[in-house]
Amino acid sequence: MDIQTAMAEMGYAARAASRAVASASGEQRNAALIAIREAITANREAILAANEADLEQGRSNGLDAALMDRLALTPARLDALEEGLSQVAALPDPIGVITDLQRMPSGIDVGTMRVPLGVIGMIYESRPNVTVEAASLCLKAGNAVILRGGSEAIHSNTKLGEALASGLSKAGMPVEVAQVVPVVDRAAVGAILTMPEYIDLVVPRGGKGLIERVAAESKVPVLAHLDGICHVYIDSDADCEKAHRIAFNAKTQRYGTCNTMETLLVAKAQSAMLPDLVMALQAEGVELRGCAESRRVAPAITIDASEADWSTEYLAPILSVRMVNDVSDAMAHIAQYGSDHTESIVTENPETASRFLREVDSGSVMHNVSTRFADGFEYGLGAEIGISTGKLHARGPVGLEGLTSRKYIVKGDGHIRQ
Amino acid sequence: MDIQTAMAEMGYAARAASRAVASASGEQRNAALIAIREAITANREAILAANEADLEQGRSNGLDAALMDRLALTPARLDALEEGLSQVAALPDPIGVITDLQRMPSGIDVGTMRVPLGVIGMIYESRPNVTVEAASLCLKAGNAVILRGGSEAIHSNTKLGEALASGLSKAGMPVEVAQVVPVVDRAAVGAILTMPEYIDLVVPRGGKGLIERVAAESKVPVLAHLDGICHVYIDSDADCEKAHRIAFNAKTQRYGTCNTMETLLVAKAQSAMLPDLVMALQAEGVELRGCAESRRVAPAITIDASEADWSTEYLAPILSVRMVNDVSDAMAHIAQYGSDHTESIVTENPETASRFLREVDSGSVMHNVSTRFADGFEYGLGAEIGISTGKLHARGPVGLEGLTSRKYIVKGDGHIRQ
Repeated sequence: MDIQTAMAEMGYAARAASRAVASASGEQRNAALIAIREAITANREAILAANEADLEQGRSNGLDAALMDRLALTPARLDALEEGLSQVAALPDPIGVITDLQRMPSGIDVGTMRVPLGVIGMIYESRPNVTVEAASLCLKAGNAVILRGGSEAIHSNTKLGEALASGLSKAGMPVEVAQVVPVVDRAAVGAILTMPEYIDLVVPRGGKGLIERVAAESKVPVLAHLDGICHVYIDSDADCEKAHRIAFNAKTQRYGTCNTMETLLVAKAQSAMLPDLVMALQAEGVELRGCAESRRVAPAITIDASEADWSTEYLAPILSVRMVNDVSDAMAHIAQYGSDHTESIVTENPETASRFLREVDSGSVMHNVSTRFADGFEYGLGAEIGISTGKLHARGPVGLEGLTSRKYIVKGDGHIRQ
Repeated sequence: MDIQTAMAEMGYAARAASRAVASASGEQRNAALIAIREAITANREAILAANEADLEQGRSNGLDAALMDRLALTPARLDALEEGLSQVAALPDPIGVITDLQRMPSGIDVGTMRVPLGVIGMIYESRPNVTVEAASLCLKAGNAVILRGGSEAIHSNTKLGEALASGLSKAGMPVEVAQVVPVVDRAAVGAILTMPEYIDLVVPRGGKGLIERVAAESKVPVLAHLDGICHVYIDSDADCEKAHRIAFNAKTQRYGTCNTMETLLVAKAQSAMLPDLVMALQAEGVELRGCAESRRVAPAITIDASEADWSTEYLAPILSVRMVNDVSDAMAHIAQYGSDHTESIVTENPETASRFLREVDSGSVMHNVSTRFADGFEYGLGAEIGISTGKLHARGPVGLEGLTSRKYIVKGDGHIRQ
């Protein structure tokens, strides 16, 4: 059977399974999550052995240390996966409840009910943990999911897929609720992207190359962010101590995350604080690239920022720095070079803050907070399937609600329209 | 200048104007709505004269009576347009308010703010009223809009576009907030559908041909419904009087609307009530097409329903009728043949009602109510830009909220991530 036909069969089965999981009760879905946890516990050795096969393949393919780290499952990581399943089971049921029921002038009651989206296509790289994390969120929200991980993790993902199937089956649900694509053929990705009849939403997680390919080829709506070029703007009315603390944290707390600051914008009136901040960042090992004005103010910045720097997500200990006149300039810079992900203003002026919060058009806009807080768990969503920089459906960190739709519920007692 | 270049220039200008209108206050946007109303009042004769030119062209092109009626502007219809502008101005501002601000364990406050989507592309046919109605909703929600009406209404739309520009300009806003495409070239539609860099959402309104073309060609997300194949299911536990009333109203109150019932499903236990209902519908001039069982029970149904009838939106005084065993059968029929628009169950059994409300996967699911209530005004939305049968972003009747996005707002006082 060719890959296109095989994928269409998976899609068809997923669509059928999505109806079963949508009509399952919250208790049944939670029971399946716990049964999956138990299946992982029961198969830890086999899972770790499969992961070892992936790691060995990775070593012989010369994967770099960062990728190898992402690929690795350890007993501690399996502990975290198992704990995650229990946490997702403990979250409130996102579907099935009728809310906002209101009596209209005609006498009918109109409200809404959250319902599952249907079938999710997850396309991801490296981290086999995603197989279970994504499946658990899709299942909790009443969806079926097709999981297509990277070829480098195929042994781990296949073994984790068996645990998913075993747990689902034990809870009396079709195993097609969560299907791991069993082949490494890249055409499987293309198939997922071109089956809108079977797949309602594609969630890609991985490097820029993957996201770009998915965005360009997909006939199915995509929930994703391409870049995280996040900005901190230190306003002329900023408290310098807070500004220093926030900028330092936003850059150095972790380098490889999408909510890490990549460009620092500083109001000219704050020139005096820049040299100290530059020194602290350089002491931490951060390379600074500055505009002419920032280099004049802080000569320790020895590298000129090029035009390309303003639109680069370094994901590394590198930071571009630009002096601006005021909040308007800062917002113009963000509108031109930003990626609509996360921006933060540091200021004690409530009017300036308000203007920034209102006019900056990003998924997360912050005031006196490190950009590193842009995260589903930090926002109290309980979980995160991804971060979206699109403006439709879901935006910013996306939790269970982003995996649902809603429908109108209308109740009456024989009401007819006049 | 070729049409593609001209449209790209409109798109670029709309994007710039969308920033201006997004940062305008609610008072400014309302002032523009009232100024547009005044511009229409001041130009009623010119608008009616332009409409007369369209009507004359329509007559010589042999447009049918229904299309001619949709095309016509009258003093009464201009009254309604003007009144509509005041009503939209009086609606609560859908954007700019921060809601749900909650303190997280880390100490940060997280909430959301509704924001405009950006630029809307309206593609529609016949009714020139849509030019003003759609522009007013887009403007109220802080968006720019590109309006592409049908060639048959080009004179009316151009004149109404002048009123839009005059009102915007009087209120100090860029005229590019609402641009009417000034040419009838069909390539303009293709251009709108392929400029995701300038247009964030396409809303098509018109016949099935238009919607299908838009759905097939668009690179921009589309908010639409292709069909309205709405069902009423009369359950074995229905109150016969309510069932009769609802079914009669759902079919006959208006024939050409998308929320009109097209298929009636009747539980076999309710056979006794069918002949009377058939008689009442036939007396009203409705043609009935039935399954074998319904024809046996109600021999006045003289036409056999074909397989194609179950998936046909008649938009006419025609109704297909099918007998089913029970609610499960009815839901299976709806899942197979429905268009995810609006379905209603008539029953006095709360458990059956609950199951139907939960499991039927349509934009509106109703209990003891006529399907004709599926409407933004009836749902208290204050306005309606369209009805969506898609499950992402907005579903069912779509009001101002469907023309907005939201972003996360995060506030702190120097908070950093540990």
